[in-house]
Amino acid sequence: MQNWHLARGFRFSGVHCGIRPDPHRLDLALLVSDHAASAAGVFTQNRVCAAPVQISNKRLPRADARAIVVCSGNANACTGKQGFQDALRMAEKTAQGLGCKPEQVLVCSTGVIGRHLPMAKIEPGIDQAGINLTPEEVGLEKAANAILTTDTRIKVSTRKVTIAGQEITLTGIAKGAAMIAPNMATLLAFVLTDASIAPADLDGIANHATKRSFNCISVEGHTSTNDSLIFMANGKGPHLIEENLVQFEKEAIAVCMELARAIAADAEGASHLITLEIEGLRTDMEARLIAKAVGESVLVKTAFFGGDPNWGRIVSAAGYSGVIFDEADLSLYVGPFLLYDRGTPRPFDANEVSTFIKNHRDIVVRMVFHLGSCRCTFHTCDLTYDYVRLNADYTT
Amino acid sequence: MQNWHLARGFRFSGVHCGIRPDPHRLDLALLVSDHAASAAGVFTQNRVCAAPVQISNKRLPRADARAIVVCSGNANACTGKQGFQDALRMAEKTAQGLGCKPEQVLVCSTGVIGRHLPMAKIEPGIDQAGINLTPEEVGLEKAANAILTTDTRIKVSTRKVTIAGQEITLTGIAKGAAMIAPNMATLLAFVLTDASIAPADLDGIANHATKRSFNCISVEGHTSTNDSLIFMANGKGPHLIEENLVQFEKEAIAVCMELARAIAADAEGASHLITLEIEGLRTDMEARLIAKAVGESVLVKTAFFGGDPNWGRIVSAAGYSGVIFDEADLSLYVGPFLLYDRGTPRPFDANEVSTFIKNHRDIVVRMVFHLGSCRCTFHTCDLTYDYVRLNADYTT
Repeated sequence: MQNWHLARGFRFSGVHCGIRPDPHRLDLALLVSDHAASAAGVFTQNRVCAAPVQISNKRLPRADARAIVVCSGNANACTGKQGFQDALRMAEKTAQGLGCKPEQVLVCSTGVIGRHLPMAKIEPGIDQAGINLTPEEVGLEKAANAILTTDTRIKVSTRKVTIAGQEITLTGIAKGAAMIAPNMATLLAFVLTDASIAPADLDGIANHATKRSFNCISVEGHTSTNDSLIFMANGKGPHLIEENLVQFEKEAIAVCMELARAIAADAEGASHLITLEIEGLRTDMEARLIAKAVGESVLVKTAFFGGDPNWGRIVSAAGYSGVIFDEADLSLYVGPFLLYDRGTPRPFDANEVSTFIKNHRDIVVRMVFHLGSCRCTFHTCDLTYDYVRLNADYTT
Repeated sequence: MQNWHLARGFRFSGVHCGIRPDPHRLDLALLVSDHAASAAGVFTQNRVCAAPVQISNKRLPRADARAIVVCSGNANACTGKQGFQDALRMAEKTAQGLGCKPEQVLVCSTGVIGRHLPMAKIEPGIDQAGINLTPEEVGLEKAANAILTTDTRIKVSTRKVTIAGQEITLTGIAKGAAMIAPNMATLLAFVLTDASIAPADLDGIANHATKRSFNCISVEGHTSTNDSLIFMANGKGPHLIEENLVQFEKEAIAVCMELARAIAADAEGASHLITLEIEGLRTDMEARLIAKAVGESVLVKTAFFGGDPNWGRIVSAAGYSGVIFDEADLSLYVGPFLLYDRGTPRPFDANEVSTFIKNHRDIVVRMVFHLGSCRCTFHTCDLTYDYVRLNADYTT
């Protein structure tokens, strides 16, 4: 028992259909709302986007969504017309089982690019997933497992909150371990709630939550073809009036931030989770630009892997972010150590800082500018031998 | 004897002054024109740029340059006011030895960021470099060695050409092995010629040559604090009239392209030089944007290290380059193998392509779009365990 909070009126399942050779690896997930639900989504900004992304993006926002069907191990991206037909068929097959229209089903895929889906395995898999649907925790756990690729663990964030005296549940799951970049992070994430929220409102909430969470993590800056975040609100619980939406959005952001942090922490091969606290800029966008430049610099990432307090790489990455500042505007801390103080290097014991980095899996890098009051929190990770090993031999 | 072509009226030297502990490692170079020379430069676009970059950038273009003094092992970047004073002092000391004004001396540094220069070692080093100056090959070889950091070999490109019936020599050297990115590549590069060219013309030539050469290579996309390309034309040879400048520029671009390719080929830890031929775009800028996205994707780079023909990563990187295209506009070749044909994956033998990649150090990736007639050639490299090892433990 995980003591997760499960949004009312949803059922879940995850099965092994055979996309992956290992019979113990689940590779097909189904998330179903018992009744028509509001749904909204945020998708990759990559020009090359997978067939399921094109289809789901077109179908959202909507007021009558019923299900999300997901396969892992194959991205169904760069697969031409056949890929488009296959994705449509996944939704159609799911709709047949649920007795709804194909348009009420959203479809997602994640995995290797450029291979056709094994539909002869996926179609019976969808039938089996329909049979296994359950509102219990075991169903959510299997669904959370079935969407994983190179992740080492499931990512789940749930919360039960009281808004305007009424109880609301949010249930979120996500996957993502590489090809993670802002705009948006490569991942699949699904947040289900039993609140009643209009599709247009849910759309706004999904966009705001993405900006604060999945757009503030990076593993290597490679925007994927398959990023999909989908919100569903089925109205089994209370209807949220406008003044309560703000509080709901806060909770939705918290769920997404928890999922996003879990993705960065489980990044392929990572030995450090690096949290960048970028403060004192004129706009939030400036803070994010600096965070992105620093968080995606492989020179910064390899230095942390080696416990090398090579802070010049951090400052120089900020320098090419596009944000205008002078060195005298900037101070830099790695953990508790002030290394750069308004444009001047501070003497420090390199061994002491190196030991600190090596002994802490979670490292906070704080960059304090003196230009304004805007800020951002951004999660990234180090670049390790294991990352190179995992990605040097992925498809062969 | 290397049989290099040495521009007339220049002398060179390289000495060990003690920035580096190893007494066999040269760490200070001097390039001198015997008489006042036209000079122009192109410098990093990083906001955080080293003290010597700020000083040299301000001094160029000019008509009366005499020398370039370079130290390696220390970037003199992020070093505050002290760093600025130190860089000024390097130029001043050099000028004293040559009997010219400090403003006639350009200064460059490369190496670790955030440490003050050991001026007590550098000043006598400049004296010694002045004593050792020679117009012979041995001097150029020592200078080419003294500017290196983690490079494994010197980069020299020289040519003797006949323009309008008159003989002109171009002599170029460069360094750069990591923190290499477009805009511009991290590096030092110096191109000396005995032609007579006005400073403003030389400035235009330097900018054009940079765009075609050093802005078309990437090791990891980290724009450095110290990038400097300096051209000097001392007029010992013929004066070039406007109609001959075009031909000179062609030769200057060829020298810079040869130096740029040598930098990518000697990238830290690289086991493959990857040449991207991006064709059929509406503008050159579009071709460069796609090349930069593909050439800097660590997922693409790790795949080549592993000999993994994971072409979906190449296509998806093009997809987030910002260039608008449809998948049906694109075909992709890795070496001789057509893997993606106008939006549709082609069946191929993964083992055959993998073996091809493993057996060839130089790999050409051709992306053929059907949108126009503009193109670009871009050099990058793979991302290896050795790159991670070299960069995980650089300063400690």
